[in-house]
Parts: sequence; C-alpha cells; structure tokens
Amino acid sequence: MSQDPGRFAVGFDIGGTNMRAGLISGSGEIIRQVSAPTPATAGELDSGIVELVRALGEDHPIDAVGMAVAGFLDPACETVRFAPHLPWRDAPVRAHLEGLLGLPVRLEHDANSAAWGEYRFGGAQGADNWVLLAIGTGIGAALIVDGEIYRGAHGTAPEFGHLRVVPDGRPCPCGKSGCLERYCSGTALVDSALEFSTRGGFGDSVLLEAIRRDPTGLKGDMITRAARDRDPLGVAVMEDFSLWLGECLSMVADVLDPELIVIGGGVSRDADIYLETAVAHFAGRIVGAGYRPLARVGTAQLGADAGMIGVADLARQAVAAP
Amino acid sequence: MSQDPGRFAVGFDIGGTNMRAGLISGSGEIIRQVSAPTPATAGELDSGIVELVRALGEDHPIDAVGMAVAGFLDPACETVRFAPHLPWRDAPVRAHLEGLLGLPVRLEHDANSAAWGEYRFGGAQGADNWVLLAIGTGIGAALIVDGEIYRGAHGTAPEFGHLRVVPDGRPCPCGKSGCLERYCSGTALVDSALEFSTRGGFGDSVLLEAIRRDPTGLKGDMITRAARDRDPLGVAVMEDFSLWLGECLSMVADVLDPELIVIGGGVSRDADIYLETAVAHFAGRIVGAGYRPLARVGTAQLGADAGMIGVADLARQAVAAP
Repeated sequence: MSQDPGRFAVGFDIGGTNMRAGLISGSGEIIRQVSAPTPATAGELDSGIVELVRALGEDHPIDAVGMAVAGFLDPACETVRFAPHLPWRDAPVRAHLEGLLGLPVRLEHDANSAAWGEYRFGGAQGADNWVLLAIGTGIGAALIVDGEIYRGAHGTAPEFGHLRVVPDGRPCPCGKSGCLERYCSGTALVDSALEFSTRGGFGDSVLLEAIRRDPTGLKGDMITRAARDRDPLGVAVMEDFSLWLGECLSMVADVLDPELIVIGGGVSRDADIYLETAVAHFAGRIVGAGYRPLARVGTAQLGADAGMIGVADLARQAVAAP
Repeated sequence: MSQDPGRFAVGFDIGGTNMRAGLISGSGEIIRQVSAPTPATAGELDSGIVELVRALGEDHPIDAVGMAVAGFLDPACETVRFAPHLPWRDAPVRAHLEGLLGLPVRLEHDANSAAWGEYRFGGAQGADNWVLLAIGTGIGAALIVDGEIYRGAHGTAPEFGHLRVVPDGRPCPCGKSGCLERYCSGTALVDSALEFSTRGGFGDSVLLEAIRRDPTGLKGDMITRAARDRDPLGVAVMEDFSLWLGECLSMVADVLDPELIVIGGGVSRDADIYLETAVAHFAGRIVGAGYRPLARVGTAQLGADAGMIGVADLARQAVAAP
C-alpha cells in the first residue's frame, strides 16, 4: 500500500460543468491544481484532458492518471456505460485515454474515488469496513469492505438515494417518486422549506418572508443560515432533515452494518447543526437496538478534493501492483 | 472447497419451537435426521443437543457439528448475543458446545446457513455474488460476496425486513412502524387481506366470506389458494404482495447489486403465482434501468433443509481449513 511519496499522480474530477485536475503526492497532498470548463463533445473532452495533464506535468514526472467519473462504469472500470452530464456512452474510456496520454490510466466512480481519498488520507483512516454518504444535490454512496471498494456484480453498488421511502411521495427526476434523496439532500432542504412554507405556525420567520418574496430564489445555504439564526421555519426544515438523515443512517446500518459512516458532500459543511439529532434518531431506529454495537458516524475531511486525491492514489496503486 | 464425501457432519437448525438435526454427507445429502421440541432452559437445551448428536452418530463417524441459530451472533461466530426464542444471552455457545460434544462446532446465523446450503448444493450454485431473501413470518436475508458470507462489522448484516418503507405505516413487533416485512412477508398476506376486506369491490369473494365468519382464523395458505382460484380478494392481495416484492428486489439490487437474488422461506413455495409480476415490477424500479444489467431472480431449492445442510458444510470446511 505504501508508495514513494516523491512520485506524483494526477487525479481528475470530471463534473458536468467543470473538470479539475490535481498533481497529487504519494501522501495525498495537492501539489498543484488546474481546472477548465467541461467540453460538450468527446473530441474536445479528449483535448481538454490532454492539456490539463500536460500543464501539471511541466515540472514534475507523472506516474499515472486517475479519472473520477459521475456515472455508471462496468465492474472492471474499463468502460463508462452512461454518465448523464458527459459525452461518453458505452465508451472504453480507460484504454482510450491511456493511448491518448501515454500514461497508465485508472477509471473510477466519483463516490468510490472520494471514499478512497477519505480512507487513505481523510476522515476514514483506519476503518476497513465503512460507508461514505456524499450528500449534496442527491446522495452518492460508497462502501469499503475489508479495505477494498465494493462495487457489486455489475459495478453499480451501493445506491441509497433512490430507495423509495414514501409511497406516492415527492416526484424524483429519476422517474420514480418518494426516493430517499427527495427528503435527505441539499435539494430536499429547499423542497421541504417550500412545502412547509404553505403551512402555518412559523410566526415571524425571516426565511418565510424571503420565500414569499421570491420562492424561486431559495437556496440551501439560506436555510442552514436561517436555522443557525433560530428562524422557526429554518429550524423546522433542519429538524426534518435530521430525522430523515437518522432514518438513512439506520438503513445503511441495517443493510451493510459498517463500523463507520462518514457524511460527505456539500451538506456535510453544516453537520454541526444537524448531526447530533440525526445520530440520536439513528440510535433508536436500528433493528435490535441495544443488542448490537452502533456504527460510528463522522464527517468527511477532504471536502471537494476527496475524489481527486482518492483517484490519484488508486492510479498510483494500479501502477505499483504486480 | 471439496471434502471427502464419505465423511459426515451434523447440521442443526434450532428454532423456537423445534430443533432439527441432520447427518449430512459431503455432497449435501441428508443421510438421517432427528428432531425434538426446543427446551426452554439452557441446561435442557445442552442435554437435548448432546442427545441428538449421539443418536445421529450411532452408526456414522461425525467430523464436526454446525448450529444454525436465529439471532444475533458476534462477527467471529463464537457468541450468541441475543436469540429471541432461545435461552442464550451473550453466551459463548461455540466453545461451550465444543466442550460438551467433544467435536469441532461451527455457529452461524440461520439465514447465512440457508444461503450457504443453496450456494453449495441448491439454487445458487455457481453464483459468487448473490442475495438470499428468506420470506416467511418476516424477511431474513444473507449476502454472499466473492463466495464468502458477508456479515458486516458487527455480524448483523444484511437486514432488509425492518427498513421503513411507509412512514406511519403498519405497526411492527420490532417497535417501529411501516417496516418492509409488514408488507412483504407471509404475515403481510394476512394483514393485507384483513385490511382489504374492509374495503368494497370484491364481489362474491369466498375469501371475504371466510374472513367475515372468522377473521382470526385467516392463514396465508388460504390466501394463496384463493388467488389460485381467481378469488377477487385473493388476487388483489397477491397482486399487492407482488408489487411490494418487486420494490424489495429493487432495494436489494440498488444497494448490493448482486448477480442473483434467490427467494426462499415459506412464501417461496407459491412463487409461480407472484414471481413474474414481481420481477416485471422490479425491472422498472431500479435506478438507471436500461443502462445496467438486471440481477437474475430465482427460487430456493432446498426448502426448510437449507440451513441444516449449509451449516453442516460450513462445519466441515472449518475442520478442513488449515
């Protein structure tokens, strides 16, 4: 597992809007980073990737390149089957980029990459059986079992965000309704605030006034800020989110029984205002509560860099492996 | 993995009412079996187990004894933490029975034992990544990953029966409400029939008449029989069960992404009347339907003997291992 920290790998985090790449040391430090808008066509994406790698490699030798991708990969991580915001469809991306860059390339799902970063250098060091819940627009998840990424038979595990938790519940862009991430995500904060705002009982809520003025301008950080200011509507929305997160934690613990669950993603920045309530709810909801140890719950430490750092480390490992 | 089929192990299936023990060959055949009521005290349970092993060992040499237990075990399978219907509480059962019997003893959770039986000799042969759903009174589950039993960090994985799928839903003996097994189990068939019987629209249903005469006498097999006879209430209840089973399959596939899901337990006997509908519903409910291969769905083949056969094989393996 240990590599020469004097050697470097590049980690890419390719999102629908921007792509970021970092030159990462063997101890997980970001030596340098660059970014660019994500091109819309496969050809421009190729050139963009080559250019960023060239920029990072000017003064440093690069051993390998890792690519964290938001989408479905095959279990061998050779092919991108489907990535909603990228121009790859059933594309053998790994071999293609390896040919293009003349360097070993490692492809990995973005949540798995972030989990690997947290496992090697962040909030999950030392925990060999644990789950990452990356809560932002939706819920991304990754599972580490005995120190390895669990991906399932077809490479799609683990998915928690679209478990149906409310029959005929809030409609989801996935086509179903009542999915967990419609109640437990950054997006859900906004949905809940809009829904709650039509009920009474929130007295002189500044947040309620803001919603009445401009419901379409409501953002998640307005709600967390309101909750911090003890605004009645803000507090009610965060309370609801806390209970759903506790429910989500209990589902993860029931099915996977990890030693640790790490909350990452954009929502993790405000963990101080909801995590205690969520964990208390979780403790009372698992099956056999009292007869089984409870998973620890923590927060991610590498923020938005986790995927870049993690996939660079995976790329280095792939090169170092026999 | 292969052992001398001429040698024998004993497999126990210890339930709350009866305990059964079988003399099992290396190829999974039941050579002989015995049973007795499960004693209520730990001392009588000890004597009962010794007596059954003695009876089975009269004419055959026994290499090892496996015990399938319905309850929480520690991850090392040394201790029974809690088994609701047995007199063991935080008891070091494995070492205790080994001393008592003078034979190597292997302890295992009952669903894991049944899964191992189906994996080695039944409906899951050749599938190294798969899930057993044992659907009867509730939902028992087991997960095989890369040919090994997945048990989680504390030995309690995987649990699906008590995931909450309906907020404020049907009350569950576990203390929560809306648990999956309240809608998708043999018990749920009865609950659904009673609930549906209070609505109108079932015309001249023989099942409805039977419920009106004696609601407390309603049994699951009356419902499956009614469905086979195209009784309107019976059909409606089985249709509801099929949809919930499809939902359950999609939850398993989303979280664990196995290559195969095997339906076992008492309810699996009637798979011919619900499985096709359930699988069709499942196919439309997984995330990314169309962009990922679907898990196969099959039925268990060893019936109520799966646990006994499986745990005997695990016991033989433990002896054979270096």
